[in-house]
Amino acid sequence: MSHTQEAAHVTTSELEAFMRRVLTHCGVNKPSVEAVTRALLTASRMGIDSHGLRLLPHYVQAVKGGRVSPNPQMTFSRRMPATGYLDADDGFGHLAGYTAIAHAIAMADDTGMGAVAVGNSSHFGAAGCYPLEAARRGLIGMAVCNSDPFVRLHQGQGAFHGTNPFAFAAPVEGENPYLLDMATSSIPWNRVQQYAAIGRELPPDVAANIAGNTTTEPTEVSSLLPLGGAQFGFKGAGLAGVVEVLSSTLAGMLNGFRLLPMAGPDMSTPRGVGHFFLVMRPEAFVDLETYRARMREYLADLRAQPALEGAEVLAPGDREWRCQAHRDAEGIPLDSANLEAYQRLAEELGVAPLSMSWQPNGDRMQ
Amino acid sequence: MSHTQEAAHVTTSELEAFMRRVLTHCGVNKPSVEAVTRALLTASRMGIDSHGLRLLPHYVQAVKGGRVSPNPQMTFSRRMPATGYLDADDGFGHLAGYTAIAHAIAMADDTGMGAVAVGNSSHFGAAGCYPLEAARRGLIGMAVCNSDPFVRLHQGQGAFHGTNPFAFAAPVEGENPYLLDMATSSIPWNRVQQYAAIGRELPPDVAANIAGNTTTEPTEVSSLLPLGGAQFGFKGAGLAGVVEVLSSTLAGMLNGFRLLPMAGPDMSTPRGVGHFFLVMRPEAFVDLETYRARMREYLADLRAQPALEGAEVLAPGDREWRCQAHRDAEGIPLDSANLEAYQRLAEELGVAPLSMSWQPNGDRMQ
Repeated sequence: MSHTQEAAHVTTSELEAFMRRVLTHCGVNKPSVEAVTRALLTASRMGIDSHGLRLLPHYVQAVKGGRVSPNPQMTFSRRMPATGYLDADDGFGHLAGYTAIAHAIAMADDTGMGAVAVGNSSHFGAAGCYPLEAARRGLIGMAVCNSDPFVRLHQGQGAFHGTNPFAFAAPVEGENPYLLDMATSSIPWNRVQQYAAIGRELPPDVAANIAGNTTTEPTEVSSLLPLGGAQFGFKGAGLAGVVEVLSSTLAGMLNGFRLLPMAGPDMSTPRGVGHFFLVMRPEAFVDLETYRARMREYLADLRAQPALEGAEVLAPGDREWRCQAHRDAEGIPLDSANLEAYQRLAEELGVAPLSMSWQPNGDRMQ
Repeated sequence: MSHTQEAAHVTTSELEAFMRRVLTHCGVNKPSVEAVTRALLTASRMGIDSHGLRLLPHYVQAVKGGRVSPNPQMTFSRRMPATGYLDADDGFGHLAGYTAIAHAIAMADDTGMGAVAVGNSSHFGAAGCYPLEAARRGLIGMAVCNSDPFVRLHQGQGAFHGTNPFAFAAPVEGENPYLLDMATSSIPWNRVQQYAAIGRELPPDVAANIAGNTTTEPTEVSSLLPLGGAQFGFKGAGLAGVVEVLSSTLAGMLNGFRLLPMAGPDMSTPRGVGHFFLVMRPEAFVDLETYRARMREYLADLRAQPALEGAEVLAPGDREWRCQAHRDAEGIPLDSANLEAYQRLAEELGVAPLSMSWQPNGDRMQ
């Protein structure tokens, strides 16, 4: 099978049904099934393909290997009126994320804001999923998460921080939320792998070799550079550090440098991932009408800015919402690697395969 | 007078006395004098020279011009248990900043965290000053602020966001706080001016001409690029946007694109700057001993990383604390431009000039 860009398209409900089938078959409890499925679909619909459906086989490995508990007893302690700690009991990070943001929202209803540090968790998919829950309810949300080391420090030689994502969402009246979801490196690690596979050169100033020097040759890459590159990477590294303090330190977890690698080979030991979530009610600061008007004006000003020739000025989230509308209408694409992985998963587990309402290259499926 | 790097050195107390004299002479009330002086000294001691003593003549212009009120009636409304709004009544941003962070700290004592949006304010100096107040008391602090447009959007042609700083400080037991204070552009605007003055080329990928295309020629620069440069500037622009939402929108102020320029020529109209401050108690999330131990481990891991040849790996703040120790011992340097400006200020206002205990180039002072 050749590696085509899109080997098949599926509807959200077909994908959802398959994910539920697979996870339930692995003994994952219902709340965890719902949370993982919801997070993966959210990412896939918005076009965040690195954190969407492609991760399902990985999560199956993690739960079958014992790294992730299929039936965690997560416990939340509201330590003060606006703050709390969620012990995720080594369950899925997605359930931890949705649980924590729900507690943060409830506390924000009481006190104007709420924050939850989460410990003993695991990979939670796309960080943006959780602030979106807040924004959908009219609140501002933020999420950060540590990860195992991929990114070198400013002027450092080897990988130290994870890609430590930062996500932020704010409600916009009558529109989809404002949504920023970014790693604190310039590129994600899987782009290095993709470029190595097709023999493509990386952009300058985004990755380093084993000595810490920048390289554009993907096969030589040993670490990513922090956002800002060789000269201004102290900013990206500093942001990664803030993420680390909030998601590792404040959650009582080891910092990312000491985390077991997400990719294994050890798929049986819980990793102790940490997250941090924060929620704020706009009307706890300013009248809601003022917030709404100012937000509209800001986005109108932003979107009215003249763009470079042939380019487009977008607000954070604009690309994602456009992709979501397109994919909800046309289906979610699977490339051939994902399609193969999904077929293998169905065979290995003995569950019904992904049904597909539409296949652009059906002949390749024989 | 030639532009030497350091035309004179002064002690903190000499500088402090001069600043108090000057501001008091301008009719600035005592709390504002204390706040401006404290913020400028904090920045100058730490080596943040763009936001230190050099700004005193600007603030004198602003208060004499009527832009900034010398005797503001700032009013704080605690809208919910963890949140509030400070109307800064067009006073100095430094007084607004210290007042807001004090309210945030007090709310955090009650509820675990506190946040304050500030409207009708003005330039507040270095953003790091305010989270430092929290960290000095054992709390985590954050501050952001809007500013007039200098930075283009990703794929935009002209300046839209300000350099929109983000500052974060966290307590470290037995050490100075962890401190990140960064603009969301790669370089500050005054670096473009400095490089233009000495005919020096800018680094690549940090500034753009009037068409929005990157340039290294400082005299051609019309806007700065967001952190991440031409290719990954959607991240820096997104971070600037988060700063904008928190400091403009949540404070009910116009976004930075609509702010009057800090540099004038209008020095009589209040600008309506917005800030946002957030404070969290570590022990509101995790046991204090655990927080302290994890923070120590994280910084020890970070500082132990091997550096590029001839370089050094530093944690955010390390450079600033080192500078502060040096300047507290050796004095704070003034370059000849600052020295001239300070002499002019003393003459124009008829106040006693800055006394200087030590002058490396005393002969140039004649």
